[in-house]
Amino acid sequence: MSGSTVSETPDTVIAHLRDRQHAHLAALGEFLSIPSVSMDPAHAADMATAAQWMVDRLQRIGMTRTEIVATAGHPIVFSEWLDAGSAMPTLLIYGHYDVQPADPIDAWHTPPFAPSIRDGNLYARGASDDKGQVMAVLAALDAWLHTFGRLPINVKLLVEGEEETSSVGLRRFVRTETERLHCDAVLMVDSSMLTPQHPLILYGTRGNCYLEITVRGPASDLHSGTFGGAVENPFNVLVRLLASLQDGDMRRVQVPGFYDRVRAVDDAERRLLASLPLNDAVLQAMTGAPALAGEAGYSAIERASIRPTLDIHGISGGFTGPGKKTVIPAQATAKLSMRLVPNQDPEDIARQVIDFLRRQAPPTVSLDVHILSASRPVLIDYRVPEVQAASQAFEKAFGAPAGFMIGGGTLPIAADFQEALGTPLVITGFGLPDDNMHAPNEKLNLSCFFRGSEMIAHYLAVLASCP
Amino acid sequence: MSGSTVSETPDTVIAHLRDRQHAHLAALGEFLSIPSVSMDPAHAADMATAAQWMVDRLQRIGMTRTEIVATAGHPIVFSEWLDAGSAMPTLLIYGHYDVQPADPIDAWHTPPFAPSIRDGNLYARGASDDKGQVMAVLAALDAWLHTFGRLPINVKLLVEGEEETSSVGLRRFVRTETERLHCDAVLMVDSSMLTPQHPLILYGTRGNCYLEITVRGPASDLHSGTFGGAVENPFNVLVRLLASLQDGDMRRVQVPGFYDRVRAVDDAERRLLASLPLNDAVLQAMTGAPALAGEAGYSAIERASIRPTLDIHGISGGFTGPGKKTVIPAQATAKLSMRLVPNQDPEDIARQVIDFLRRQAPPTVSLDVHILSASRPVLIDYRVPEVQAASQAFEKAFGAPAGFMIGGGTLPIAADFQEALGTPLVITGFGLPDDNMHAPNEKLNLSCFFRGSEMIAHYLAVLASCP
Repeated sequence: MSGSTVSETPDTVIAHLRDRQHAHLAALGEFLSIPSVSMDPAHAADMATAAQWMVDRLQRIGMTRTEIVATAGHPIVFSEWLDAGSAMPTLLIYGHYDVQPADPIDAWHTPPFAPSIRDGNLYARGASDDKGQVMAVLAALDAWLHTFGRLPINVKLLVEGEEETSSVGLRRFVRTETERLHCDAVLMVDSSMLTPQHPLILYGTRGNCYLEITVRGPASDLHSGTFGGAVENPFNVLVRLLASLQDGDMRRVQVPGFYDRVRAVDDAERRLLASLPLNDAVLQAMTGAPALAGEAGYSAIERASIRPTLDIHGISGGFTGPGKKTVIPAQATAKLSMRLVPNQDPEDIARQVIDFLRRQAPPTVSLDVHILSASRPVLIDYRVPEVQAASQAFEKAFGAPAGFMIGGGTLPIAADFQEALGTPLVITGFGLPDDNMHAPNEKLNLSCFFRGSEMIAHYLAVLASCP
Repeated sequence: MSGSTVSETPDTVIAHLRDRQHAHLAALGEFLSIPSVSMDPAHAADMATAAQWMVDRLQRIGMTRTEIVATAGHPIVFSEWLDAGSAMPTLLIYGHYDVQPADPIDAWHTPPFAPSIRDGNLYARGASDDKGQVMAVLAALDAWLHTFGRLPINVKLLVEGEEETSSVGLRRFVRTETERLHCDAVLMVDSSMLTPQHPLILYGTRGNCYLEITVRGPASDLHSGTFGGAVENPFNVLVRLLASLQDGDMRRVQVPGFYDRVRAVDDAERRLLASLPLNDAVLQAMTGAPALAGEAGYSAIERASIRPTLDIHGISGGFTGPGKKTVIPAQATAKLSMRLVPNQDPEDIARQVIDFLRRQAPPTVSLDVHILSASRPVLIDYRVPEVQAASQAFEKAFGAPAGFMIGGGTLPIAADFQEALGTPLVITGFGLPDDNMHAPNEKLNLSCFFRGSEMIAHYLAVLASCP
């Protein structure tokens, strides 16, 4: 093999992957047992453990050079195999080893950090988002390196520990280390297929603007018997402010200017979305909701991809324990976020929302708004060879080419890759929409995990023959 | 003394009270150290301990017969001294030994169940509501019994353990044991003075209707990236429903029929309220709010007494921890209550609110509303001798007669006393509006405690000479 390019993946590589499925699953189980919850300071040591686990694994697989890059937050794992020669393309593969918090813990059928297999799925926090997907990549690298002692192309691997906390450290790294990260394409493996039979490549992602809104009223909690009616209740104000953000009938965000920079989507693009096996009935079944909801004039998949939206995530203050307490709280706080589409700017949107809320806040309270994160939406040309090659690799591994859509979720780092490296992005993954990412009972479909590793193995070979 | 009536309290009784201030304070400290939180099942044993502590104390004071009355919930302590003879009136005195939960615990400057004296105040959960007030009564009984071996009138004492959980057991007891509770007046010692110099008697109390509203959407928590925009977010619906309950400008409840049965208050009654030392500036200073709020056309004290109101107490669901989580919760729940005035009926009001919410709830969610409590408002004729006698007793103890108003808080049992016993109610107490009842750092003003015990001692004597 050495010196020649490979466009077909040798059968021995796929056979090696299939022979070692149990070993890869066992390794994933070990990785998932480390509760690497990046947003919880109580898990700082677990974060370091998870990063070191990844380094050890990459060294055992045979990557040339693997290192831990310290950041102000959690470390980045960076690994290279660059022996394919300068004539061969270089692929930068991205994933993350941090996971969402597991709460509400009580809603899990098995403990979140004790991986458990049921009905062809592996249940654990991070199984799908993103440890399982990262381990599919490692399995493919392992198969090539153990079968042929080499990879068909040059590979750089970047596994961060702050995806769930806005990738602060990695964003800085990507913007300052463009030389080290130089590549011909970035493969981001941190998203979902449509079904186990329908792979998906995202030609963009929604951005995100996450706010925390606090309304402060009396100096301390008051008894609603003594003072109720005479003093502002921060909750009463907060619900009015929150309700004002959306129109209950048309489900449109009411903040002036919010839709001004939303990219017009033509009929061809709407047909592309309509061709996906994701009609309203399918989406409703996935959610288990009594009925779908959303912006008038758009299908469910349009509402979840090419349209911006606003969701309240939690409201705190006062009393929520068992029984009843008649308290007027000193303050009430809401967490909410908006998913933004090209070409909305998260900083502009934050300012518009803050202005809108301030104009309405009565003088009986004070209002604090904190921007917890602001991530730009991304738009990619899906017709470039590096993206189409991924679709071919899916066809080889899954028997079907990829569908294309703009992803509803946010990959904060995608915009940085695009701007700093100037290379095509391939945003794809092996999760499923019902994997309960960010919810109790997160799972990974084992068939997606195994075929996903084969897709990566094929992709390296297809890229090797790219013009 | 025996056989003769007493209208003036002998100096020896007051002297005895003053001599024993430290002993009474020590006893109160002991009582406050028992965390008798009635609404928390974890404190069930503490409830029994507090009831037994009260029984022991009453027996030591010299009450003739003291017993613990079991209920389906927490026990009632019932005690009698009936040796004044049938020609003498019988006073039924009411208080409660249960307290509110102490959360948020972190906001307390000293631990809630380790009583601490600072600047003439005793800080502890229950210091003002209602253990301190009950202990003022016991101090007065102790002074009479230890000085003269008798009380000037017959006394029955009822100390319940479920005031903070709607007095379920006591309400049943009062309605079935009218013979045992037969009396000429009920003195309820569970409220506040206006200032340490301004005693207050309530000629009524607001009622209460406490609801828990749950909006259910998707079958489980969902990722707002994958599904945001296409599925209803229960929070987004909940805030619209809650906001619809009140008009933000006029601060009126928008539920049809809500004001239909509100009693008209004439100018004389408004002047009575205006004469109290409770103008808007005083109320604002008490709350520490940036500005007062409330229903247009009414003063702050009117809004907090003769006008109904609605307060949200807490909202749960989703994610409220540190950092950010982009979850669409499966459900969101709000706790809210309305303070009701004569002649609003809490059951009717609950139905009106539930109908109002149901009419607005979209088919994308399901809506559950639970009535956690429903207590009727009370109106009393304050011109009867038993009420006026209490004002005279205040004048003797505090140097000022009582002001009169309708209390903003709710004493669920007051309506039952009124209906079951048919006797005048005297609703008063020795707390202060800034005592942080139901909030962190609850306190009792020690001067109010000591003078309060003297007021009770005087009241027994004044009642003995009532026509």
